[in-house]
Amino acid sequence: MTPAKIYWEDLQRGTVHALGSVTTSAEAMIAFAQEFDPQPFHLDEEAGEASIFGGLCASGWFTCSVAMRLLVEHLLKHSSYMGSPGADNIKWLKPVYAGDTLSLKYTILDSRPLRRRADVGMVQSVCELFNQDGAKVLYAEGYAMFGRRHPAPADAMAEPA
Amino acid sequence: MTPAKIYWEDLQRGTVHALGSVTTSAEAMIAFAQEFDPQPFHLDEEAGEASIFGGLCASGWFTCSVAMRLLVEHLLKHSSYMGSPGADNIKWLKPVYAGDTLSLKYTILDSRPLRRRADVGMVQSVCELFNQDGAKVLYAEGYAMFGRRHPAPADAMAEPA
Repeated sequence: MTPAKIYWEDLQRGTVHALGSVTTSAEAMIAFAQEFDPQPFHLDEEAGEASIFGGLCASGWFTCSVAMRLLVEHLLKHSSYMGSPGADNIKWLKPVYAGDTLSLKYTILDSRPLRRRADVGMVQSVCELFNQDGAKVLYAEGYAMFGRRHPAPADAMAEPA
Repeated sequence: MTPAKIYWEDLQRGTVHALGSVTTSAEAMIAFAQEFDPQPFHLDEEAGEASIFGGLCASGWFTCSVAMRLLVEHLLKHSSYMGSPGADNIKWLKPVYAGDTLSLKYTILDSRPLRRRADVGMVQSVCELFNQDGAKVLYAEGYAMFGRRHPAPADAMAEPA
């Protein structure tokens, strides 16, 4: 049985979705840092312990990317997702350490049709990652376009801009 | 000769810094997408050509991470950088394709001392990535803490909050 596909109409303002969890590894955090964010506290346990973070910790961009992975696996790949124009208000609230288990909470802040495309709607959301102790480590708002199950009628699209 | 270290005082409001460039590869873009953003148009050339992007294109988080790499290599690792509380107003303005050469422009929007730490200052900046055709592909604001060369005098820190 194929799961039902998620369209823009299914993503209602104010709804909250639990989008799975993932356990980080030192290997993945260090490999990311070597490629994109080669700072001592992201590369080496001893340097992390000597820093204000108190241990090897993930690049903030690694943490954002982990949230994206969960979002794709648990929502976007089952949906009519068409891409994102941007993100906003990203806060790295606490360090992410190797072995942390991060769970994604996805809340829909707003939803509106696109005026110029009858078959697409925009969703504004918040992604929050929590660690195994329930502490919030990431807050990030994002925008996403989804195809509509039922395109807007032609008269709705004829409204003045 | 060791290059002079960059401190908070050296990062003056309104200044613009060219922070190098890097050429992306399909291999790096696909490896990132496999780990963090496994959507067809980030994974496969044919799927990219069939999408609204018109070709294999990078995950937006890959593009942010490339900007971070340039920022670390050309500024942060030569400085008293102490970490970032967050980023803001991220816009993925155009697709990034394999083989694009991306150059980082770093503009300092604002700079202020931290009231509660005499030895640290905060900088608000804009990172913009341009491709080889001069088109802006990424706009992102960020916040960063840097150690001060000269900590604030004790009387300055005694001001009421």
